[in-house]
Amino acid sequence: MTDALIHPINQKLVGVIGAGTEATSTNERAHEVGQRLARAGCSIICGGLEGVMREVARGFREALSDAPHDRHQIVVGILPSNLTEDGNPHLDLAIATGLGVARNSVIVNSAKVYIAVGGGFGTLSEIAYALRLGKTVIGLDSWDVHEEIIKVDSPKAAVDAALRALSN
Amino acid sequence: MTDALIHPINQKLVGVIGAGTEATSTNERAHEVGQRLARAGCSIICGGLEGVMREVARGFREALSDAPHDRHQIVVGILPSNLTEDGNPHLDLAIATGLGVARNSVIVNSAKVYIAVGGGFGTLSEIAYALRLGKTVIGLDSWDVHEEIIKVDSPKAAVDAALRALSN
Amino acid sequence: MTDALIHPINQKLVGVIGAGTEATSTNERAHEVGQRLARAGCSIICGGLEGVMREVARGFREALSDAPHDRHQIVVGILPSNLTEDGNPHLDLAIATGLGVARNSVIVNSAKVYIAVGGGFGTLSEIAYALRLGKTVIGLDSWDVHEEIIKVDSPKAAVDAALRALSN
Amino acid sequence: MTDALIHPINQKLVGVIGAGTEATSTNERAHEVGQRLARAGCSIICGGLEGVMREVARGFREALSDAPHDRHQIVVGILPSNLTEDGNPHLDLAIATGLGVARNSVIVNSAKVYIAVGGGFGTLSEIAYALRLGKTVIGLDSWDVHEEIIKVDSPKAAVDAALRALSN
Repeated sequence: MTDALIHPINQKLVGVIGAGTEATSTNERAHEVGQRLARAGCSIICGGLEGVMREVARGFREALSDAPHDRHQIVVGILPSNLTEDGNPHLDLAIATGLGVARNSVIVNSAKVYIAVGGGFGTLSEIAYALRLGKTVIGLDSWDVHEEIIKVDSPKAAVDAALRALSN
Repeated sequence: MTDALIHPINQKLVGVIGAGTEATSTNERAHEVGQRLARAGCSIICGGLEGVMREVARGFREALSDAPHDRHQIVVGILPSNLTEDGNPHLDLAIATGLGVARNSVIVNSAKVYIAVGGGFGTLSEIAYALRLGKTVIGLDSWDVHEEIIKVDSPKAAVDAALRALSN
Repeated sequence: MTDALIHPINQKLVGVIGAGTEATSTNERAHEVGQRLARAGCSIICGGLEGVMREVARGFREALSDAPHDRHQIVVGILPSNLTEDGNPHLDLAIATGLGVARNSVIVNSAKVYIAVGGGFGTLSEIAYALRLGKTVIGLDSWDVHEEIIKVDSPKAAVDAALRALSN
Repeated sequence: MTDALIHPINQKLVGVIGAGTEATSTNERAHEVGQRLARAGCSIICGGLEGVMREVARGFREALSDAPHDRHQIVVGILPSNLTEDGNPHLDLAIATGLGVARNSVIVNSAKVYIAVGGGFGTLSEIAYALRLGKTVIGLDSWDVHEEIIKVDSPKAAVDAALRALSN
């Protein structure tokens, strides 16, 4: 029995990685990614802080509040500090690691596919870890450092690529 | 706005800590703790492996399958390996940390109250971390190493003490 | 070829664990432990901060400055923060982990024997990890939670027990 | 008093990052980097495994064995496993973290300058972390992902750039 069958939330879990301080246009794209993942029945794992991490969670929760949905659709934030209060207010579940930036390597293990939206050096470390593990990495206005990154130019294309990877 | 108001799953999250290899009687007590937490509307964070961690998750999911319940009631396992497949099959969400036993310090940050059921040296490390953070620690047939540990003698008493701590 | 033969510093490495805030008498005992380990040709791994961690390093460096010694005798501090400046000034080498208290599990892997001097909850977590790994644990006015801990009543007895464990 | 004054080994510590499996020419360059750092009076922090990590340590120890040197010149390996035996045999000190790849974030905190030699995805994660912390990063046949990386074309140029960064 594979993991996809046994842990219901992991089954449709998508990672969204990106920086805590981003341009308005990048944050808007993260917000749309969150909305689209919600409507597609997915859950999200992210870093739980501000910027891209906040906007993707906000979009996710807004879209779910409009519609009937699976009880197993949640947005989880993996925080660097040991205080759940440091998570942005749109998370369903805050996992406070207390690990500082070492939490970046924790984020990339639990989903099968990751969407990078914009991104600073922290995002680059996450992309590197995800590629190392053979995860599918989708880049939306993000680091273009390796041919295995699937480059897309819209939130819709990012979520479509993520759904294809989940169903493989 | 406190965390209790903003992250719905953390609001009623209870940690359950215990060993991967335990006597049958200890595992049965963990199973009943899981059932009682489910019926009380709580979510669970645990280490995600075998023994106490498996039985508490199994009891939780069994009790939920019988009854209507809140969409935000889940059981989460925080795994030492970087493979979600290593989580027991009763978890709703497996967070694969890749940190080895250092994941013990991750488990104790995100809930307000922890129930220790039996336990080996790993459990002792988790109790130490939880006490250090000022968490409520409830011991059921577990390490009796400090006066701040609330000692109880049944799964019912453990869950009752946990619910009192959550409502404070 | 065993590790004892290949990594010269690990060969005579002793861990010293204890709290950052301790009574004067406990700190004085840590200071003497450091002096005695230096004169016995050992190196030290510790948590690198104040209290017991500072005094053991201070005693170590003082004793070495008086006498000819092996070039491979050093005192290493494994820090919770990501800044080497946070280490006490008596360390030869500060390893800044950035992991917060999760660094407690890092301290206990690299030596074969650990001396606990006094200690709070952090020390208890380290004792638990060390026992889990089958390390020799020597307690000087420390947690008395398991029969495998070798209880001693003086810095001399602690260092003698450590030297016996190293030579086994 | 700055760290540079108080922790003697950190004062001239250089990080060398690179992959465990590399082409012969890359390993030869790592070997020469190790030799040159030894002769320049530096210490080394690295990942402690095979490939670049082994060759830089081997070159370092070979060069030191030929010549009088400071007692505080050592090569330290920060290992992913919790067993010091997993370190290559040329390390003076093996720190076994037990953290898996999360140890990559530990390596980059304790030195002021890092030389990347070749490199896979793990090296890319380390470069990202080091840039995030404002460390000097020197690339020798390595990832060319950001303008802040100082690109060099020989081991001599790499070590010269590292020495300049240390003296700033």
